[in-house]
Amino acid sequence: MKLISFVLNGKNTYGVVTDEKKVLDLGPLLGGRFADLASLLGNNDLSPVQEALENNPATLDYEDLDLLPVIPEPGKIFCIGLNYADHVKETNREVTEAPTIFLRVAESQVAHNDSIVLPPESVKLDYEGEIAIVIGKGGRRISEEKAWDHIAGYACYNDGSIRDWQTATSQWGPGKNFWKTGGFGPWLVTADEIQPGQELTLVTRLNGQEMQRTTTELLIHSIPRQIAYISSFLPLNAGDVIVTGTPGGVGAKRNPPVFMKEGDVVEIEVDAVGVLRNTISAE
Amino acid sequence: MKLISFVLNGKNTYGVVTDEKKVLDLGPLLGGRFADLASLLGNNDLSPVQEALENNPATLDYEDLDLLPVIPEPGKIFCIGLNYADHVKETNREVTEAPTIFLRVAESQVAHNDSIVLPPESVKLDYEGEIAIVIGKGGRRISEEKAWDHIAGYACYNDGSIRDWQTATSQWGPGKNFWKTGGFGPWLVTADEIQPGQELTLVTRLNGQEMQRTTTELLIHSIPRQIAYISSFLPLNAGDVIVTGTPGGVGAKRNPPVFMKEGDVVEIEVDAVGVLRNTISAE
Repeated sequence: MKLISFVLNGKNTYGVVTDEKKVLDLGPLLGGRFADLASLLGNNDLSPVQEALENNPATLDYEDLDLLPVIPEPGKIFCIGLNYADHVKETNREVTEAPTIFLRVAESQVAHNDSIVLPPESVKLDYEGEIAIVIGKGGRRISEEKAWDHIAGYACYNDGSIRDWQTATSQWGPGKNFWKTGGFGPWLVTADEIQPGQELTLVTRLNGQEMQRTTTELLIHSIPRQIAYISSFLPLNAGDVIVTGTPGGVGAKRNPPVFMKEGDVVEIEVDAVGVLRNTISAE
Repeated sequence: MKLISFVLNGKNTYGVVTDEKKVLDLGPLLGGRFADLASLLGNNDLSPVQEALENNPATLDYEDLDLLPVIPEPGKIFCIGLNYADHVKETNREVTEAPTIFLRVAESQVAHNDSIVLPPESVKLDYEGEIAIVIGKGGRRISEEKAWDHIAGYACYNDGSIRDWQTATSQWGPGKNFWKTGGFGPWLVTADEIQPGQELTLVTRLNGQEMQRTTTELLIHSIPRQIAYISSFLPLNAGDVIVTGTPGGVGAKRNPPVFMKEGDVVEIEVDAVGVLRNTISAE
């Protein structure tokens, strides 16, 4: 099942996308029980969506919608750094026993088809293709064995980075949180369609050219490990997002370096999910 | 004016504390216009509170209230690291031209009088006394000259840190975000009571013994500089919090190191604000 957040008639709502690329607006049908998509995912049971689909026609055209980031206001967005060996190597860093974790905030996100914003403060806007997981059932100190039960679904993420602001000090937060630099979409593919541990292939393309390629087999800290580690220090709640890491091939570490400029089109594809596409616009 | 967030009859509300330590619950009076304290601060005008105080008796006893962190759910919590020379020195790091910035999340916070939680994952729970500012009027790319206009008020903050998790990788997020480790209180002193640039004295005491002392004159990156820098990459909104940095004297860098243990009492005092007090409890 493909779930999205979007704006309709000036109001945030959420819906389900059919195989025919039609959308059923779930807000009017389920909004009384679930205020937003995160709340629906916390239900840990998609039968209300199934019932809504059985009893209502999906009449909206997906291609016409004004999408929002899959989860527009996640309670928390955890990003895992240095989680593929080729990326660790290209950054001249070392593999750590613990996952490297930093945070993004909601306002740094953009939806599928929305523009990723190049700010006037820098020319070093870089892509980072990643697989995002979204939490459904919340929990604290979740074991690796039970971690899969807490995943509501999967999406593509572009952990867009302003490299000079990221490395201005030891802490990456500023460079990882410029307004509207993080693509999150196009939709959430629910976890019932992706088996626990299923190998996912991740590809980043810039203006059609492949820049990054990997699979989840190559993750240093696996998805269950990430969930277990993060939930050691904080509770995970419905709608929380974990961005699981980028492979080698980032623009800043190429020779010569490649940074994104106005008009560029960047795509993140996860085979079992789809393609997240953003154009770069200068602010 | 001293403003607080608290729980009354199971519901979150906010209020104003009088000189007699009585509290007027503003939720029933202003809640229709301002859902919470952050929303009130976004009004950038405290006359509704003045009017409420003139027309209603403050009948609640401050000492009996179940306080919340000053802002229970900030949109964003920015923490400035390495912002006093003596702390930079004790950590063997170097002063950077840009401020070092990392993020906390709301669930890592605790209120005045609430317990700071020592998790079973570590024994290295450390204090960091800091001055917090809370944003009133929002903005993006705020100039240093206009920065003071965006401050709604000041509070004490204990940027409680789990040191071994903080330094397990290059990024400090996990050690700075254990559940209920960050004290934020006791109240917000509104900016009309503290002049722009007024020197504030900050003291940390552990079980009555002074552990840290500094003044805002010694900040490496001033409060206006912090606001200007952060608002370069993200909009600042009402209720956003900036935790402005800790001076030398943290427990981990003492010889021998000092970590907080169950039953310890930690106090952060800012002269123009008051005292934030928390007891340590083991989870």
